[in-house]
Amino acid sequence: MHIPIQRGSGTAVVEQIRHSIADRIRSGLLTHGAALPSVRALAKTSGVSVMTVVQAYNQLEENGYIRRVHGKGTYVSTEQYSQEVRATPSSKEDWQLVLQDYLPRAQIWRHSHNFDPKEGELKLSMASIDRELYPLEEVSEEIYRITKSDPALISDYGPIQGDKQLRGHMADYLKSRLVSVSKEQLLITNGCQQGIDLVARTFLGPGDVVMMESPTYMAAIDVFRARGALVVPVPVDGEGMRMDVLTRLCDSYTPKLIYVNPTYQNPTGSVMSAPRRAQLLQLAQSFNALIVEDEAWSGIQFGSPPPAPIKSMDTDGHVIYMTSFSKILSPGCRIAVLAAVGTVLSRLISSKAIADLGSPLLTQQVILPFFKGNRIYKHMEKLNRELLKRRDLAIRLLREHAPAGVTWTEPMGGLNLWLTLPPQTDTDRLLHEAQRERISFLPSSAFYPGEPEYHHLRLCYSYLPPAELQMGIIQLCKLMDRHLDRQVDQTYVPVI
Amino acid sequence: MHIPIQRGSGTAVVEQIRHSIADRIRSGLLTHGAALPSVRALAKTSGVSVMTVVQAYNQLEENGYIRRVHGKGTYVSTEQYSQEVRATPSSKEDWQLVLQDYLPRAQIWRHSHNFDPKEGELKLSMASIDRELYPLEEVSEEIYRITKSDPALISDYGPIQGDKQLRGHMADYLKSRLVSVSKEQLLITNGCQQGIDLVARTFLGPGDVVMMESPTYMAAIDVFRARGALVVPVPVDGEGMRMDVLTRLCDSYTPKLIYVNPTYQNPTGSVMSAPRRAQLLQLAQSFNALIVEDEAWSGIQFGSPPPAPIKSMDTDGHVIYMTSFSKILSPGCRIAVLAAVGTVLSRLISSKAIADLGSPLLTQQVILPFFKGNRIYKHMEKLNRELLKRRDLAIRLLREHAPAGVTWTEPMGGLNLWLTLPPQTDTDRLLHEAQRERISFLPSSAFYPGEPEYHHLRLCYSYLPPAELQMGIIQLCKLMDRHLDRQVDQTYVPVI
Repeated sequence: MHIPIQRGSGTAVVEQIRHSIADRIRSGLLTHGAALPSVRALAKTSGVSVMTVVQAYNQLEENGYIRRVHGKGTYVSTEQYSQEVRATPSSKEDWQLVLQDYLPRAQIWRHSHNFDPKEGELKLSMASIDRELYPLEEVSEEIYRITKSDPALISDYGPIQGDKQLRGHMADYLKSRLVSVSKEQLLITNGCQQGIDLVARTFLGPGDVVMMESPTYMAAIDVFRARGALVVPVPVDGEGMRMDVLTRLCDSYTPKLIYVNPTYQNPTGSVMSAPRRAQLLQLAQSFNALIVEDEAWSGIQFGSPPPAPIKSMDTDGHVIYMTSFSKILSPGCRIAVLAAVGTVLSRLISSKAIADLGSPLLTQQVILPFFKGNRIYKHMEKLNRELLKRRDLAIRLLREHAPAGVTWTEPMGGLNLWLTLPPQTDTDRLLHEAQRERISFLPSSAFYPGEPEYHHLRLCYSYLPPAELQMGIIQLCKLMDRHLDRQVDQTYVPVI
Repeated sequence: MHIPIQRGSGTAVVEQIRHSIADRIRSGLLTHGAALPSVRALAKTSGVSVMTVVQAYNQLEENGYIRRVHGKGTYVSTEQYSQEVRATPSSKEDWQLVLQDYLPRAQIWRHSHNFDPKEGELKLSMASIDRELYPLEEVSEEIYRITKSDPALISDYGPIQGDKQLRGHMADYLKSRLVSVSKEQLLITNGCQQGIDLVARTFLGPGDVVMMESPTYMAAIDVFRARGALVVPVPVDGEGMRMDVLTRLCDSYTPKLIYVNPTYQNPTGSVMSAPRRAQLLQLAQSFNALIVEDEAWSGIQFGSPPPAPIKSMDTDGHVIYMTSFSKILSPGCRIAVLAAVGTVLSRLISSKAIADLGSPLLTQQVILPFFKGNRIYKHMEKLNRELLKRRDLAIRLLREHAPAGVTWTEPMGGLNLWLTLPPQTDTDRLLHEAQRERISFLPSSAFYPGEPEYHHLRLCYSYLPPAELQMGIIQLCKLMDRHLDRQVDQTYVPVI
């Protein structure tokens, strides 16, 4: 357990330790019964005083994260209902416990069972698209045609930057989204996730400041924290990241990178206004900072188009723009693209080489045919029509069945709604109950780069077919109802 | 340019700065004409004295890496033949130059043009297999059959750990290679490259000690250096990593990780003896260290099988074993597997989630049919028979055509020979000449974790069809001949 202490960061050292351990526990990296280092040992490895660690442990115990067993040690305690903390039985692999790692948070891993296909589970958690909405037969035929006519694509590595032809088509596609780039300015990645990761590993180190919306895409937080960066949360409202707050924060913290999800933000659905986009770019210019503009699913839109991407105004290479074809065409192929210029781009390509020598050629070729003619635009049109129906169905069902005190967003694009429950609710606990009934969603605790809020949840309407979506939402509403009833007069104890 | 200074590491600070900048220049991350920071600026950002930077710059200038232009600044100078150093013309993206990165070395990127298919070039550089030796038609049919019968694999994310069925088959395959693991102990990665990278990002941080063979797989050096680890080179001889030297080094440096390529080592072809394998494991146990056993191409073998993998003796989870199907089945799919146990495994899976949410399902399914029945074993048999013929052809040609003073290894497996030229030769310079005649190989400077040797080269016999292999080797021999002739009485100046 490596806890990077950042002095002079404006956050008390006690807080940093508490937050770091709580994040590991919330991510499931430290599980029930795991032994924590002794106060003395942690003080030594982190270079802080014993008193500081004692205070951090006290707070963690008060919050119900850990329990001290007199004369034995300190243990992670995440199950309020179990009678006692039992340490994991010893094994030959116990030496691994002393092996320090650089993995402070992994919310994406905690919720990764979502990626396992599980029959019968109603996955309101899954930010992916119902397979019925993909042109699967067509893709399958294309794959056959391609591999038949050019089997070399099975036997060859591709260029590290990505297949040239595909980059050419993507440059055209991006132009239709108002991003003017040449194929030389693009890098193919394994989903936007890898794009974010490449930026972080190339440009961020311990203490570098990253500004993020709060709440934001959970796995981006995981990435930046893993680099030891100082992550500064900036609140988001109906017009995106709050520029007034960001400007004020920049007086205390010099940003190296600003990560935004400006269009149909994950998870709030908010769209950053055009003036704020312009302000953000100006601010990045004045600080010599990078902007990561993550438009993973900006193509999923239901009304008038959103404001032009920040990248479209970028004249001197501050913006790294990302968009994904993993959501809209095929998660099984995991293809996304990143646009950047200058040495920022060449350094990212070097990092891609070091990370995995380039994305597989096969999956790049498989999605190629969709960029020929206007096929992708037709597909997107159909997709958006169908997803709007599902969004409307979800909203109608919530109106009919949600208990009083629950509100939700009505986003004009993207894959999910963001529900807000009464302030005392704990959606981690609610998820625990939901999973017993084979329903899943994502609790808000996963989405906060700083201190989490617990009373929201993300509900995706894109993955389940309509009948299951209906079933899932009605059941979830019943669950919320019971849960809210029960929690009246209860004291708040977080559940992991 | 972030230069992590490691005090008390046994390497002088001047050396660390010199080495870090030289590595960036050798990797092509800093190119001819690029401005280096002023002495004062570098001293400040690295936290060292001005005198230290002056000394480092003096040495770099003596070695021909940089040139100081009075009253202007210090510039990278890699072209001995150009008359003067000209700074790159200024552009709107110049602000990016001040953007510090964490990318100290990228030899894999410098040589990445190898991955671009280029007609007419004789690639003796390419550690990949001639497409004629792959069962391409079969793979193509399989792809069609699979996507037709289960189109869901195009539309779905897979489990982050990798497809369950594939992991099951791989566990069986690994048993045939004497590695007893269950499918729960495996993690699918995008080539071994990503496996190495996942280990590094999870367990290595600034100052952590990594022991590596010298020379070794170049892109593994890139990975460990990118984490700011202290990389300690250990010489390799005919029986693998020198255990006597390693043991002595461990008195000064406590290893956290030992990276080895024990079977048909890349690039020397050396096979680590059974006693040394056992010693290495004992040493790792005594230091609570991890071993990365990279057997990327151990399946390519020409005689009696090599000693059992270190992993086969590992009882308590010290060894992370890796092998690749990217080389033997399909580079276009980029599938490799990693075996580990305990929290080391679970932490690696978390890192995989953060890095890219899991490998594409499609490429995993495509190679599945090869694990049914004994198809993969038959394929390997045929592959080994053909590659042995090519190895023998390469050796015969060298015997006939190589100039006096050139020697080579005769490895019992793998994809390449390792040539040694007279000590004053510079194979970077030789490559420069070879590329003009459209021949490529890898110069030895890429393979050294510490101070490089310049008088070896790696020659792959696996990628070119026999006729081209013959042409390439004969031409290379002529080139070496001319080069050796010319260099008599020349003073040595490194070329980048």
